Amino acid sequence: MTFKYGDAVQQARVRPGMTVGELVDEFGKAGAYNGGSLWQAVNIYERMLRDEEALKFFGLSGAMVPGGMGGIVADLIQRGHIDVLVSTGANLTHDIIEAIGCHHYHGTPEVSDAELCEEGINRIYNIFLPNEAFIRFEEFMQDVYSSFPEDSTVSIAELLNQIGNRLGSGILAAAVEAGVPVYCPAIQDSMIGLQYWLFSQTHNVVVDAFGDMHELIDLCFEAERAGAMFVGGGVPKNYILQSKLMTESGFDYAVQLTGDRPDLGGLSGATLDEARSWGKLTREARAVTVYGDATINLPLLVAATLERLEG
Amino acid sequence: MTFKYGDAVQQARVRPGMTVGELVDEFGKAGAYNGGSLWQAVNIYERMLRDEEALKFFGLSGAMVPGGMGGIVADLIQRGHIDVLVSTGANLTHDIIEAIGCHHYHGTPEVSDAELCEEGINRIYNIFLPNEAFIRFEEFMQDVYSSFPEDSTVSIAELLNQIGNRLGSGILAAAVEAGVPVYCPAIQDSMIGLQYWLFSQTHNVVVDAFGDMHELIDLCFEAERAGAMFVGGGVPKNYILQSKLMTESGFDYAVQLTGDRPDLGGLSGATLDEARSWGKLTREARAVTVYGDATINLPLLVAATLERLEG
Amino acid sequence: MTFKYGDAVQQARVRPGMTVGELVDEFGKAGAYNGGSLWQAVNIYERMLRDEEALKFFGLSGAMVPGGMGGIVADLIQRGHIDVLVSTGANLTHDIIEAIGCHHYHGTPEVSDAELCEEGINRIYNIFLPNEAFIRFEEFMQDVYSSFPEDSTVSIAELLNQIGNRLGSGILAAAVEAGVPVYCPAIQDSMIGLQYWLFSQTHNVVVDAFGDMHELIDLCFEAERAGAMFVGGGVPKNYILQSKLMTESGFDYAVQLTGDRPDLGGLSGATLDEARSWGKLTREARAVTVYGDATINLPLLVAATLERLEG
Amino acid sequence: MTFKYGDAVQQARVRPGMTVGELVDEFGKAGAYNGGSLWQAVNIYERMLRDEEALKFFGLSGAMVPGGMGGIVADLIQRGHIDVLVSTGANLTHDIIEAIGCHHYHGTPEVSDAELCEEGINRIYNIFLPNEAFIRFEEFMQDVYSSFPEDSTVSIAELLNQIGNRLGSGILAAAVEAGVPVYCPAIQDSMIGLQYWLFSQTHNVVVDAFGDMHELIDLCFEAERAGAMFVGGGVPKNYILQSKLMTESGFDYAVQLTGDRPDLGGLSGATLDEARSWGKLTREARAVTVYGDATINLPLLVAATLERLEG
Repeated sequence: MTFKYGDAVQQARVRPGMTVGELVDEFGKAGAYNGGSLWQAVNIYERMLRDEEALKFFGLSGAMVPGGMGGIVADLIQRGHIDVLVSTGANLTHDIIEAIGCHHYHGTPEVSDAELCEEGINRIYNIFLPNEAFIRFEEFMQDVYSSFPEDSTVSIAELLNQIGNRLGSGILAAAVEAGVPVYCPAIQDSMIGLQYWLFSQTHNVVVDAFGDMHELIDLCFEAERAGAMFVGGGVPKNYILQSKLMTESGFDYAVQLTGDRPDLGGLSGATLDEARSWGKLTREARAVTVYGDATINLPLLVAATLERLEG
Repeated sequence: MTFKYGDAVQQARVRPGMTVGELVDEFGKAGAYNGGSLWQAVNIYERMLRDEEALKFFGLSGAMVPGGMGGIVADLIQRGHIDVLVSTGANLTHDIIEAIGCHHYHGTPEVSDAELCEEGINRIYNIFLPNEAFIRFEEFMQDVYSSFPEDSTVSIAELLNQIGNRLGSGILAAAVEAGVPVYCPAIQDSMIGLQYWLFSQTHNVVVDAFGDMHELIDLCFEAERAGAMFVGGGVPKNYILQSKLMTESGFDYAVQLTGDRPDLGGLSGATLDEARSWGKLTREARAVTVYGDATINLPLLVAATLERLEG
Repeated sequence: MTFKYGDAVQQARVRPGMTVGELVDEFGKAGAYNGGSLWQAVNIYERMLRDEEALKFFGLSGAMVPGGMGGIVADLIQRGHIDVLVSTGANLTHDIIEAIGCHHYHGTPEVSDAELCEEGINRIYNIFLPNEAFIRFEEFMQDVYSSFPEDSTVSIAELLNQIGNRLGSGILAAAVEAGVPVYCPAIQDSMIGLQYWLFSQTHNVVVDAFGDMHELIDLCFEAERAGAMFVGGGVPKNYILQSKLMTESGFDYAVQLTGDRPDLGGLSGATLDEARSWGKLTREARAVTVYGDATINLPLLVAATLERLEG
Repeated sequence: MTFKYGDAVQQARVRPGMTVGELVDEFGKAGAYNGGSLWQAVNIYERMLRDEEALKFFGLSGAMVPGGMGGIVADLIQRGHIDVLVSTGANLTHDIIEAIGCHHYHGTPEVSDAELCEEGINRIYNIFLPNEAFIRFEEFMQDVYSSFPEDSTVSIAELLNQIGNRLGSGILAAAVEAGVPVYCPAIQDSMIGLQYWLFSQTHNVVVDAFGDMHELIDLCFEAERAGAMFVGGGVPKNYILQSKLMTESGFDYAVQLTGDRPDLGGLSGATLDEARSWGKLTREARAVTVYGDATINLPLLVAATLERLEG
């Protein structure tokens, strides 16, 4: 057996005023570790976004909206780069909070959480969210829910669509505007869900847990090819990947940004190669995982990819 | 301000034939890093299990059943140490697979996943699962589902209860036997869910996404105190923690085993102190996080705690 | 190509009062992720310690002595299970501190470090070390150094041997007692080194950086086989591994406990397989890495291995 | 106690063709997790580089030169932004290999290392280095060493200076050109060291382990202020930090890029706050740690900082 190896490593060079795309090209010349993977991710994501026959999924996990990453997702929807969004309930909760005019604030993790609690401040690592936001959130959500006809059944995507209809900015609003379905399998596991529980104390509207799955799997069947961008793992990653198990072939493109690690066995840190064994990715799928913090890697990836597409 | 510090670090000592409880006591004498945290976790878990007024939650995330950790969960249920179980759909899927007589196998991550796929083997890091298991799983699941009355509505816990009723071993069977509710908010995101989608192609049974939440929150209201053991993060962690947001007080005990890290902002790696700011834990709650691999830390923790309780 | 897979995963079972060796056997039955690796590590370490022809290296990195793990290393030396120790300077500094009667204390990482500094307390994550220890350390070290003949040259191992000679407990004392050489290539990078700098302000004794390397490489040449146990990475890991580059064959056994990860490219997180490409391990070497916190994994590994050897 | 919090989180926005500095400003507006830390790192590094009274240290650990990051370090030296470099021996070894005209190559971690070994290829995660490089390295190094006068004593920095003198590109050459001292406490722990051992078989030149420490500590005493940039941890991080223990005050600026984590207790993952308790940083020092892969974060940080300084 003879090993072939690729090009020589070039020492990366940076210069003042270089563009993000130029920086990522330097990552590619160096080609090592996660920097090299990020360059590959841009290559794959560019190719995926240029492929007009490919159905484009986006999986959103982790505290990304509180961390200021929601605007990038909304922009990708507006630019037509997301066909199906699968999110945690928490990201959608915080998207609504911002869209109704409340804010998250820069804070610090070095703090007494017991005292924060007394001050009415909820912490997400170094981000603070005052309780007032949840009071306004409750008003808004109950108002949305109260428009649901009594004794009806609603799917989760329909429920989220009703919410997005009332909003003027953010991910849910952009999705409604663009006609992009938003799936959130674990909707109960969020403030959106707790508000629904409150509403359901006095109303009879059933949320059909499987109400969206037909639509989703039909989309998968119809698509010539499919690609997925995963921010974090969790339910969105698996729900997207498993959606192709029912069709004859897997994803053709996949990019994963995660801070987890594979050796613990969990799906969130699992390599995309592992997904190949399940048939969730095709044998020839272009796929790469970039390990690290998505508050760095997502803006980098998107800015560099857009520079190639539009620059 | 004057800092007080605790006891002197004692160099841990090990000897051949020592019990797991004795080993954990040595972790406590050393008291450093995650070893020290594991000793604290045993202290808290012992106290939580001895507290007869405390409602005991268990959150199960990560590929724990394929990794051979399901038996410990089933045993804890049988011993009466779990009152409410919240799990990912994947762990319950693999629990069913084992309970119907199929097996996971020891494999390796250093392998061609494309070739594994052709061989019909699905990989979970270093664990292999042959496709045959899913064929038998499909038969079993369709048989269970076919017993659901047409045009009815079922909650997720009821659906899982119906499954557990048919099984003779494992987590779901133990839960049915012990009358422990099993919640799985993201049931769609699993093979159990995909089988349900197949079933629903020809049947009309609605799975009510919120059908279990009243029961869960009632349990929270009724409990004098509450404690939670978290293996991994994900939906189970948040769903358990948020269940106390509707009651007047938070959890009194909490232990978290996770391989994630806090600085990425995601819930799975977040400290339990962060949960204090939200009121999900009480101000005085005893809580600790042990960072590491649960295939090591869960058996260690449970063996040492049981030794104290029964030894 | 046909994949063979191993035995079926057995769900691990724990019971009150079980020994550490029995617990590790359960890890082996489960066989997944790092729990499975720890069981393999015990298998390899047992075999290595039983192999009387094998030269046994131990690499010690990370804040292990402040974290209470030094006693296990000293015991392994006394039991004859370490032939060559390579350590960071910091671990030896803290070993001396304990051996001269000072202590590390249980503290907390949630603290104002600026205030700790004013109180004269040095922090190592959740371990506190009062400044007084360094005052007594200075007296002790200057006393040792003052015995070195003026205008002489000393190797690092000789310097450490002189220190160990004056101590009644701990790693350095055990090494002197057992005739085990202690190598510490980066001795300057420690309080031992800073004290030496103070001494050298007024004395002329040269520490020969390469003074020990002949002895080390001779040991490698003479050994029939060789094995290495690595706690952490850093200089000790590389220095041990590279010592076999000059001989015809690499290590036959290797176990690594590390909290790092391979995808960052650094040596500390690198797999032991990577070392095979360099010839540092033989083609057939038995080797395994266990990812996690050594304050848990080292006592587990040693207790289980000793139980097999002596139990 | 009343908590103040900072500005509202702004959702980061990216656009095609934006500069790296503009991207990092978006990280700052989002302000969360490691993205927020990277923005702070640029703020601190800019301030440190603008401070003409500050002595500027650079600590280089991890396989950075094989990973294509050496060029950035050499450029920083040439631009006058590094006054003292402390490196692992490995990075300097690979710097020499590139400077004498050999190359590292893009490879893959999914490979048989035993077969790589037979092919004469050494692997560093996804980077391959053919054995030929070490043959040419040996010739070069023995030639350098043979110029050392017999029966002399040399310090490590002098030894490295002799090497750099013979090179036309890379870190060591840039350091000689700029008169920047390069310290490498664990020089024995590298191929440079193994070559020295070969040389010393037939020559008597003593490398004085402590020969550089006087110069280093004098530099520390003379400096009005001091700042440190750490890539990775290891010996370079501690050696730089401890150098200020002998002076009256600690570092005024510090930035750390690391992939480790603090809860394991080791220095490489320790926060810079911990260093404050030891007095290695001043009470008011501006300091931040960015967790992640330096092949992404170092180019980002340097490009954004240079854009502010020169843009």
